Amino acid sequence: MSIFRLLHEDATSRARRGRLTLAHGVVETPAFMPVATHGSVKGLTPQQIHDTGAEIILSNAYHLWLRPGCDVVETAGGLHRFCGWDGPILTDSGGYQIFSLAALALVTDDGVTFRSHIDGSAHTLTVEDVVRAQERLGSDIAMILDECPPGDADRATVAAATERTARWAERAAAARSRADQAVFGIVQGGTHLDLREQSARAMIRLGFDGYALGGLSVGEPRPDTWRVAASTTPHLPADHPRYFMGAGTPTDLVRLVAAGVDLFDCVLPTRLARNGTLFTSAGPVVIRHACHVADPRPVDEACDCYACRHFSRAYLRHLVMAREPLAVTLNTLHNVTYYERLMLRMREAIATDTFEAFAASREWAPPAASEEGIWTA
Amino acid sequence: MSIFRLLHEDATSRARRGRLTLAHGVVETPAFMPVATHGSVKGLTPQQIHDTGAEIILSNAYHLWLRPGCDVVETAGGLHRFCGWDGPILTDSGGYQIFSLAALALVTDDGVTFRSHIDGSAHTLTVEDVVRAQERLGSDIAMILDECPPGDADRATVAAATERTARWAERAAAARSRADQAVFGIVQGGTHLDLREQSARAMIRLGFDGYALGGLSVGEPRPDTWRVAASTTPHLPADHPRYFMGAGTPTDLVRLVAAGVDLFDCVLPTRLARNGTLFTSAGPVVIRHACHVADPRPVDEACDCYACRHFSRAYLRHLVMAREPLAVTLNTLHNVTYYERLMLRMREAIATDTFEAFAASREWAPPAASEEGIWTA
Repeated sequence: MSIFRLLHEDATSRARRGRLTLAHGVVETPAFMPVATHGSVKGLTPQQIHDTGAEIILSNAYHLWLRPGCDVVETAGGLHRFCGWDGPILTDSGGYQIFSLAALALVTDDGVTFRSHIDGSAHTLTVEDVVRAQERLGSDIAMILDECPPGDADRATVAAATERTARWAERAAAARSRADQAVFGIVQGGTHLDLREQSARAMIRLGFDGYALGGLSVGEPRPDTWRVAASTTPHLPADHPRYFMGAGTPTDLVRLVAAGVDLFDCVLPTRLARNGTLFTSAGPVVIRHACHVADPRPVDEACDCYACRHFSRAYLRHLVMAREPLAVTLNTLHNVTYYERLMLRMREAIATDTFEAFAASREWAPPAASEEGIWTA
Repeated sequence: MSIFRLLHEDATSRARRGRLTLAHGVVETPAFMPVATHGSVKGLTPQQIHDTGAEIILSNAYHLWLRPGCDVVETAGGLHRFCGWDGPILTDSGGYQIFSLAALALVTDDGVTFRSHIDGSAHTLTVEDVVRAQERLGSDIAMILDECPPGDADRATVAAATERTARWAERAAAARSRADQAVFGIVQGGTHLDLREQSARAMIRLGFDGYALGGLSVGEPRPDTWRVAASTTPHLPADHPRYFMGAGTPTDLVRLVAAGVDLFDCVLPTRLARNGTLFTSAGPVVIRHACHVADPRPVDEACDCYACRHFSRAYLRHLVMAREPLAVTLNTLHNVTYYERLMLRMREAIATDTFEAFAASREWAPPAASEEGIWTA
């Protein structure tokens, strides 16, 4: 039985309205998952995460496996009880982090040997270990271990990683033991459409609960990202959710929803918040800029988040300049709310068969936006 | 008309139950003010400050004067609107900060010349400037500028600072222009009881709305602190509030309430929270310690703050180890709640004429506490 119900297909694009039913709740799609790498969306309490409109968060099995360790989380009654978030959680396997963060990662057909990015200690994780770790964490959705080659890898390297990911997927599917946890396969293949199709077929054969597009947003030109996604989704079953890993800007989200993607995660709204860059309906606001020093307006007059309802740009700038911890909380609350409202707008546009017009309106990416390089056309 | 109503005097000590009526609300005393130096209690939203039970917060005119500047706060409609806290605020004048933080502070009878601790820029603040700055900030209670000599200063230095503070107080009283703002005089005199008495008389003559004990908790032995406070309060009018500046540990608070003090502030609960040291009814918990790695219990089973209701010691430790910003929020929420509950317990004990028994019970400072040096007997 599919965890996904396709509610409506937009008449003007390939965008889809759907609903995920998971162990810890229901998620309306398209949906954006704020990133809680270590089991906390930086600076937000679970109540504040909920207030942004987020229905599902993403955590990272690699990070939690290293610290505090799956045994600690399991003893606490699982990841939900540990971090006080009772809604759905997707755990990334951490394949991407092992390749990007860990030192001396050595990949074999069995899995990965690497050194911890925290203390340099040596570790080996087999494909089965990664399944088991996420089962112990108890996330609603687990991701298989995949090999994610860099964005500039040659075709032979990408092909080899794609084939290895397929072999790993088979072992991961066989290792599953929790009926209450969905598992997503990951389609690799770089920007090579034939490899993407081949990878999609291999994953579908294994009957996962959903399918992710991996190995994109890793440095390739942005139009390639969208083109590859749009060319890959037709090879995926319509009655299963599609998750694009690690994207992106508001423009990315709109383009990828138009390509038929249902689920997203990205550190952009939370990371930019910590740098004091805020998303608004009139373009990005770099709150540190001197022009905001006495500005009594909220960050975004069109936003009703806690930060915009109670505080001026002048105060938020002051908090950033004085390095007050509250700056992280309020800025993150605002940026994540901005992303969640964008998803809500897209769900509404799909439901009313007006997605193409919404995308063309560019209300989600005002002209000023490109100046800061946050939104890209 | 006094801003203070004396509701009840404990039959077993000199502790007092009272009520402050200020421009932005009512404060039940004895009361503890969490410190919001830059207009933010570190990591807490105004809603979360309210949830701790705090009815009044303390901010610092020196810090706000330097950054963002009183003009910015005034343009925003005053400090309350600027920082989104609609309850009472006391602003410290910043005399103590000028002497302790600023470089090359030069004191004359006119005021203070100093270099900013932020950028080294040169500034002069007269006694009248300090009154005016706090009137522009619009705090409920303003403090006069005082000269606070170091804890090890000799008698002549202390006497000179006490006399200068008296001269400054006269000018401050004359400079007041806001009827809706209370102003507190500050009693100096180090540990010299005769200077304290003399300073108290000088302040009372000027008819302030309340009287502070300054120049204590600056390095002198703890028993001296309590002794001086207990010897000074009898010289202060019973129908006016008494504020002990910059104390202290739970033990300090109990001892000073027993001496007839009504109002407190201290960075201890907020600063220790950021270091991961938490106050509990069973003694201090250093959450970083390995013994908490898998501990499913809340920090304090007797506490009903948001952190204790939703999170385990294991999770709080994990947040601290992973340097997650949420650690600051949850730890601060807990420690400030602990202080506010202690004040509530003291108010209850006074109302029932059982303060002496409460103090003797030491329920507020369990034996284990002394090991960490947070509570001192």
